[in-house]
Amino acid sequence: MGNLWGPAVILVRPQLPQNIGFAARAMANFGLADLRVVAPREVFPNEDARAAAAGADHVLDGARLFETADAAIADLALVLATTARERGQAKPVEGPEAAVALIRAAHPGGRGAGLLFGPERTGLTNDEVALADRILTFPVAPGFASLNLGQAVLVAAYEWGRGGEVPFTTPARSPLAEKGELLAFFAHLEGELDAAGYFMPAEKRAIMTRNLRNIFHRMELTRQDLGTLHGMVETLVAPRKKGVRRERKVLAERGDRGM
Amino acid sequence: MGNLWGPAVILVRPQLPQNIGFAARAMANFGLADLRVVAPREVFPNEDARAAAAGADHVLDGARLFETADAAIADLALVLATTARERGQAKPVEGPEAAVALIRAAHPGGRGAGLLFGPERTGLTNDEVALADRILTFPVAPGFASLNLGQAVLVAAYEWGRGGEVPFTTPARSPLAEKGELLAFFAHLEGELDAAGYFMPAEKRAIMTRNLRNIFHRMELTRQDLGTLHGMVETLVAPRKKGVRRERKVLAERGDRGM
Repeated sequence: MGNLWGPAVILVRPQLPQNIGFAARAMANFGLADLRVVAPREVFPNEDARAAAAGADHVLDGARLFETADAAIADLALVLATTARERGQAKPVEGPEAAVALIRAAHPGGRGAGLLFGPERTGLTNDEVALADRILTFPVAPGFASLNLGQAVLVAAYEWGRGGEVPFTTPARSPLAEKGELLAFFAHLEGELDAAGYFMPAEKRAIMTRNLRNIFHRMELTRQDLGTLHGMVETLVAPRKKGVRRERKVLAERGDRGM
Repeated sequence: MGNLWGPAVILVRPQLPQNIGFAARAMANFGLADLRVVAPREVFPNEDARAAAAGADHVLDGARLFETADAAIADLALVLATTARERGQAKPVEGPEAAVALIRAAHPGGRGAGLLFGPERTGLTNDEVALADRILTFPVAPGFASLNLGQAVLVAAYEWGRGGEVPFTTPARSPLAEKGELLAFFAHLEGELDAAGYFMPAEKRAIMTRNLRNIFHRMELTRQDLGTLHGMVETLVAPRKKGVRRERKVLAERGDRGM
């Protein structure tokens, strides 16, 4: 995640404690920690907020309460106001990518920058938007632009953490098979296919072999995979081989009895 | 948003109807439309799901119900399974960016691709993960990886719609002022500052002028801005000018009375 602080998330007059909790959870998910709550409708801290935070207690516990948006941004140097609709204010409008790039350019770890989010129903007032240097809005579908408060914070937090490392990666595989091992498998497979009469008509043998090998070449087979595949081929041909052995045995027994 | 269809979102055994609704809402926000629900715990469709969808009725109404994950992905060619933890399956693990890039490369509009999301509490079973070509996971903070179902769908949907157009942009501004207009403003401002004794000591006049002009140069002032600024300067100096006029008037009156 890089830096575990990030820009401040400032919730202005949030109505639902649950959304404060969702915001805290989203912040914790993507490495943000500076939550500021301005004049919430319900008393804060609050049990509903804590339940929704689902364990992001460090964010809730560190949250600071302010009476006005002015006070909440006083120590910040770069503030973006989130709005879902145009406000007719001659401020640059940025999507999340550009907003994060701007913040990182001026404040690499995020400290000193903040994102203002308005109340659920009404959004920020025009005076609150006017506090900001820029407007942040989301690339939502034209017909369905309604993003709720918790979702808006999540998208912003994700964009901040985006490009960070995922918590786990492709498991280390058994080493890739060497070509000699791969060719040995082809010999095994093609030998059995040959015995079973697969390569017919004979003039198609070359192209059939090539097509078949190319399927396996695409698989980036490991040594372990080759072991699995040898076993699979062996098992598939076992009944036939057993049949052959049984036939031989029968013939031998018949021979024994002189039939 | 480009294409308004996108990859399928497949919710496997979701427990809470609310999360189906949140998923539908997030899909509608970012231009996804193909919702598939596998063996939900509650009857679906459902009023709680509809309330949480907050108007994304077209996604809920178009949702298809399946009994198994196998059936739900039968028509897809590229499937990614979302998991929050390593599953020890030798499958490539991708973050959201790489996952979307892969889908767009093979299925530009998203059709033919799908994202599997498991139940809230347990996530996908290992057998369900095994159905997928790749694993999708999110770049969450190491100490706080818990992303709920609705949030996971939102992040995936946002990543799909990311880079799309925001719904509005910086308002068209009045045209930028021409340099002649800007210089006329400087003349006005500096004339008034001079009259008020601002440029002291005299040898600093050049540098003081340059510093001041540079502040205004950075503002990319429009013709309208210049009008505002001329008015501001005029108003600021009005009391002094009025005082000068009053003094002159007083002197004139004194003169009249022969004092």
